[in-house]
Amino acid sequence: MHTFRVWAWWPRKVEVQAGHQRYAMRRGRDGWWTAKVASARPGTDYGFVLDGQGPFPDPRSAWQPKGVHGLSRLVDHRSFRWSDGGIQAQPLASAVIYELHIGTFTPEGTFEAAIEHLDHLVQLGVTHVELMPVNAFNGSRGWGYDGVDLFAVHPAYGDPDALRRLVNACHARGLAVLLDVVYNHLGPSGNYLGKYAPYFNSRYPTPWGPAVNFDGPQSDEVRRFFCDNALFWLRDYHFDGLRLDAVHAILDTSAEPFLEQLRREVKTLGAQLGRHPVLIPESDLNDPRLLWPPERGGFGLDAQWSDDFHHALHTVLTGERSGYYQDFGNLADLSQALRAAYVYDGRYSVHRRRRHGRSAAGLSGHRFVGYLQNHDQVGNRARGERMSKLVGLGRLKIGAALVLTSPFIPMLFMGEEWGASSPFQFFTDYPEPDLARAVREGRRKEFASFGWKTKDVPDPQARATFERSKLNWAERSRAPHAELLAWHRALIRLRGREPALTDGRLDLVQTRFDEAALWFVIKRGPVTVACNLAHRRQAVPVPAAPGEVLLASEDSIQLRAAGLKMPPDSVVIFRSQ
Amino acid sequence: MHTFRVWAWWPRKVEVQAGHQRYAMRRGRDGWWTAKVASARPGTDYGFVLDGQGPFPDPRSAWQPKGVHGLSRLVDHRSFRWSDGGIQAQPLASAVIYELHIGTFTPEGTFEAAIEHLDHLVQLGVTHVELMPVNAFNGSRGWGYDGVDLFAVHPAYGDPDALRRLVNACHARGLAVLLDVVYNHLGPSGNYLGKYAPYFNSRYPTPWGPAVNFDGPQSDEVRRFFCDNALFWLRDYHFDGLRLDAVHAILDTSAEPFLEQLRREVKTLGAQLGRHPVLIPESDLNDPRLLWPPERGGFGLDAQWSDDFHHALHTVLTGERSGYYQDFGNLADLSQALRAAYVYDGRYSVHRRRRHGRSAAGLSGHRFVGYLQNHDQVGNRARGERMSKLVGLGRLKIGAALVLTSPFIPMLFMGEEWGASSPFQFFTDYPEPDLARAVREGRRKEFASFGWKTKDVPDPQARATFERSKLNWAERSRAPHAELLAWHRALIRLRGREPALTDGRLDLVQTRFDEAALWFVIKRGPVTVACNLAHRRQAVPVPAAPGEVLLASEDSIQLRAAGLKMPPDSVVIFRSQ
Repeated sequence: MHTFRVWAWWPRKVEVQAGHQRYAMRRGRDGWWTAKVASARPGTDYGFVLDGQGPFPDPRSAWQPKGVHGLSRLVDHRSFRWSDGGIQAQPLASAVIYELHIGTFTPEGTFEAAIEHLDHLVQLGVTHVELMPVNAFNGSRGWGYDGVDLFAVHPAYGDPDALRRLVNACHARGLAVLLDVVYNHLGPSGNYLGKYAPYFNSRYPTPWGPAVNFDGPQSDEVRRFFCDNALFWLRDYHFDGLRLDAVHAILDTSAEPFLEQLRREVKTLGAQLGRHPVLIPESDLNDPRLLWPPERGGFGLDAQWSDDFHHALHTVLTGERSGYYQDFGNLADLSQALRAAYVYDGRYSVHRRRRHGRSAAGLSGHRFVGYLQNHDQVGNRARGERMSKLVGLGRLKIGAALVLTSPFIPMLFMGEEWGASSPFQFFTDYPEPDLARAVREGRRKEFASFGWKTKDVPDPQARATFERSKLNWAERSRAPHAELLAWHRALIRLRGREPALTDGRLDLVQTRFDEAALWFVIKRGPVTVACNLAHRRQAVPVPAAPGEVLLASEDSIQLRAAGLKMPPDSVVIFRSQ
Repeated sequence: MHTFRVWAWWPRKVEVQAGHQRYAMRRGRDGWWTAKVASARPGTDYGFVLDGQGPFPDPRSAWQPKGVHGLSRLVDHRSFRWSDGGIQAQPLASAVIYELHIGTFTPEGTFEAAIEHLDHLVQLGVTHVELMPVNAFNGSRGWGYDGVDLFAVHPAYGDPDALRRLVNACHARGLAVLLDVVYNHLGPSGNYLGKYAPYFNSRYPTPWGPAVNFDGPQSDEVRRFFCDNALFWLRDYHFDGLRLDAVHAILDTSAEPFLEQLRREVKTLGAQLGRHPVLIPESDLNDPRLLWPPERGGFGLDAQWSDDFHHALHTVLTGERSGYYQDFGNLADLSQALRAAYVYDGRYSVHRRRRHGRSAAGLSGHRFVGYLQNHDQVGNRARGERMSKLVGLGRLKIGAALVLTSPFIPMLFMGEEWGASSPFQFFTDYPEPDLARAVREGRRKEFASFGWKTKDVPDPQARATFERSKLNWAERSRAPHAELLAWHRALIRLRGREPALTDGRLDLVQTRFDEAALWFVIKRGPVTVACNLAHRRQAVPVPAAPGEVLLASEDSIQLRAAGLKMPPDSVVIFRSQ
C-alpha cells in the first residue's frame, strides 16, 4: 500500500496511474492531491494524469529509470543499510574539497566506478568530495546543471542505492560528501513542473529560462519543494552539505528570502540529526550578506565560492585578459584576494561597467572556497583546457601552492592534482533536434565573438566531446603527472600539519610583491610562501629570515639570511628562523 | 558664461543648443560631455542635440517652462532669498504629517495659492507638510507619479522660486516639508532619458514600464542621477525629507543596494548642513530590512508607510472586504497592527496567496507612518471616495482618534480633517491620444473586474475629474465639517500634550477587544482609548478605572468605576484614576 501525494495547483482533476490502472485522487484545500493505492509498493511505476493528460512524471520522483519523460518509480529510501553511523564531516575550517563529475571521473562514468577511486582521494588528503549535480536531466551525457527531476538520480550514473553506496563508501573512508544542487532554474527538456503548479515566475527572466517562483502567489509551496529537496539529500542520502549553484540568479524580494529559509531549515535538520550540514553558494554578487549571520541581516550560509581569488590567480599565471579576466591581472589583485577575499569590494569593474561588491571585512577566510580550477573555469573555455594545457609545471606548482596554503577552503577539480591531460569540455545530449541545434549553435556563436572558428569549438552534442573529457587514470603515475601529484599530496599534508595555514583570519595575511620584477611573497605567521613568477632567476626579498624549508618546487632554490635566490617559475615554503 | 554638462553614454556626438546657436560638446572618458557657452546665463533656453537629433531636454533640467517636450531653461538656484536659517524640523517621533496635492489643494492649484492655506495647517497642529510629487510630467493635470523631469518643477504649479517660496513659508510657520519622489520608474510621456544613456533595465519589468537600471552596466551613473536628485531637493529647495514611492518596485541585486547608498548620501549631506533630512519609503514588502540600521544589515531608512495599519482600520470601520481588504477585517488585525506594525509578519495572506512579511520586533512605532486615508487609498477607489462618503461622523471620529493616538507617525490626507465632501479621483492629462485612450480604458477595465459600469468610473482625462477633486475650503466652517475639524484639532493638541501618546514602544501598547460585541480598547500608559463600534449602546470594559476624560466624541458617554457605557460609533479617551 502506498499513499500517493502530489501538489498540483493548476489541474481540476488529477489521477495517478500506477501499474496499469488509474486511480482518482482527492484534492485538499492547499492543492495537494492524495490517493491510497493498495497494490503500489517500492518498484511500482507511476505517473500523474492531469485533466486527462499524461501520465507525467512526479515532480518529486526519486527515480526515473526510463528517463525524464518516462514514468516515475517508487523507491524505498529506508531499506539501504548505512554503515556510516558515527561519521562527522571535518569542519570546513580544515577542509580540502575535491570537485568531481560522475560521468567523466571514471571510464564507466558511474557511482559504482567512482567508489574504486576513493582511495586515491584519501591518499591525496582531501576531506570533502563534491559531486557535480547528479539529479536527472534529459539525455545521458551532461554536466547536470539542466536537471529537471530534482529528487531523482541520473540513471546513467546508477540507481538511488548506487549513490548511497558511494556516499557510504566515502564516509567509510572519512570523506565527507557535498552535492551540487541547482535551485535557480530548471533544464529546458523534460521539465513538467509547470503543468502542475506555478513553479516558475515570468517576472524575472534568468539567462537559462524563467526564474523559479520564490516570491509570487503560491510560492510557499514552491519554496517547500526546494527546501524539501535540500533536506532530502541531506537526510535520505547522508550528504554532508550542498553547493548552491548561481544563487545570484535567484531573484526574490520576500522579507524572508528563500536562501534564509533554506539555511534555517537545513540547520534545524542538522540539529535533529546531530550533524552540521553546510551550504556553499556560488554567487557573482560579491555580497557578504550571503555569509553574514542572521543577527547581522545575513543569510548565514557557510562559505561561498571565490571567483575573485580564482581570477586573480589565473590571470597572474596565464597572462590571459579577455572577458571577465580584464578586471584582473595584477599581483595587487592577488594580494587583495588573499587579504580581503573580494577583489571587487565596491571598486569599479571595467568588465561589469559599474562598481561591484562590498567589503567582506570581519569574515573569516573559511567562509570562502579558493581554487585554481573548477568545472566552470575549465569547461566554459571554448575547448575546455585545463591549466596544465596553459602553463608549465613550474606555474602549476605555484598555483597549487597558493591555493593549498591560502586562508580559504581549498578546492581541486578532479584530475587537477596530476595535471590531467584530458580537457573538461562542455557536453550535452539533448535528444530534441531543435534544442540540440540551439545548444550547438549557441556555443559556437558565443565563442565566435571571441574569434574562435566553428571547427575549433567542440560540438557539445558529440559523444566524442564527452569521451574526451574523461580522466585518464593511467597517466597519473607517469612523468610529469606523478611529480605534480606528489606536489599536491605534499602541500595538503603540509596544510594539515601547519596550523598557520588553516588560520582563517584574513587580516593576519601579509603579502609583499613587485609587479615589475614579478615576485610574490605571502607570510602567514611563521610560514612564508615565496614565488618567483619571472622568466629569469632572481633574488626575492622575504620578510623574515628563512629557516627550515617546508616545501620547494625546485632543488636549485637558495635560501640565505638576506633573502632567496629563485629560478624562474618556482615556489618555496619555509618556516622563519 | 555657463558650462553645460550632460551624461550621454549612447550618442557619438553631442551638441548643446543654447539660444539660437549650437555648440559642440566634448566627451570625457566617463560619458559626460561638456561645453562652455559664453552667452548662456540663467534664463537661457537650451537642449542637447544627440547625433544630430533633437534638441532634447536636459535629463537634469530644473525648469521646463514649455512642458516636458520643450527646451530646458537655465535656473539660478542661488539667488532665492531664504529666510528659514535656523529652522529645524520636528523629529518624526513627535510629528504629524499632512499629505497634499498641489493641484487640488486650492482652487488655483499652485504653490503660491497653497501658501495662503498654511495657517490652517498650523492651527490644525500638523508639523510636516508632505507634497505629492511636484516634478514635471506631461499634461497639466496629474497626481505626479508619471514624472519625467526629476529635477524640474511642474509648470502648472509655478516656477522653481514659487516652490521655494512655499517651502520658505512653511518653515517660517515652523512646518517641515517633505517631498514625494518616484525612483522606481519614469512616466510614459516625455521621457527622453533612454536616448542619453542606459537609465533603464529591461531585465526587471515593473507594472509601469521598464525598471530603472540600478545594478546593470553603467548603473553607477544612473544611481548618481537619483542620489543627486534627492540631494538636490534637500539642498537647493530646503526640503526636510523625502517620501520614496513604491520602493518594492526598485529591483536591485547590488551588494550595496541603491536605497542604502541613497540613505548614506542623504545622511552625509544632512551632517554637512547640520540638518536631519528623513527618508520615508512606501513599500508593500513588510520587510523590516528597510528600517533596520546598517549594522543590522538594513537600509536604515527613517520610517515607512504602514498599509497594514490602514487596511486593518479601514476594514473595521467600513466593513469592506474586496481586493486586498480580504486579508483584513478583524479587530485582532487592528490590535496586531497597533502592537507589531506589520499584521502580515510571516503570516499567510489569502490575497497574495503566500506567506508575507516578517516581524518588525524591536522597531519603534516611530518608524511607521499611520493613516486612515492617503492619496492612494482614496484615489485608487473607482470613484475616489473619501472615508467621509463611506461612514458616518461617529466612525470618522473613531478613525481619527485611532490614528492620532497611535504609536505611529500620524498622517492626514488634505481635507480629511474636515471630512471634505470632494472626492480625490484619478486624473491625468496625456496629450497623446493613444496614451489617453489606454489610460482611460485601463482604468475602466480595472474596475469592471470589480463590477463597476463604465459610466460610473470617472474619465481620468476629463478636466471635470480634476476639478471635482479640488478641496472646497468654504465647507470647513459648516456642519458637520466644522465639528470634525475641531475633533482633529483637539486630538492633535492632546497628542502634543500627552507623552504616553507619542511613546513609540510598541511592546507597551495594550489592547482589549471583542470581535462579537465590537468594542476595542487601547491602553497606552495612563491614557486609554475606548471605542464602541457596535450599532447599539453598550458597556465597554476598561483595563483601568476611568478618571479624567481627555476627549469624548459624544456627550452621552458615561464613565463609571466598573467601565463605560458608550453609544453606538463613539470613542472616548481618558486618563486612568
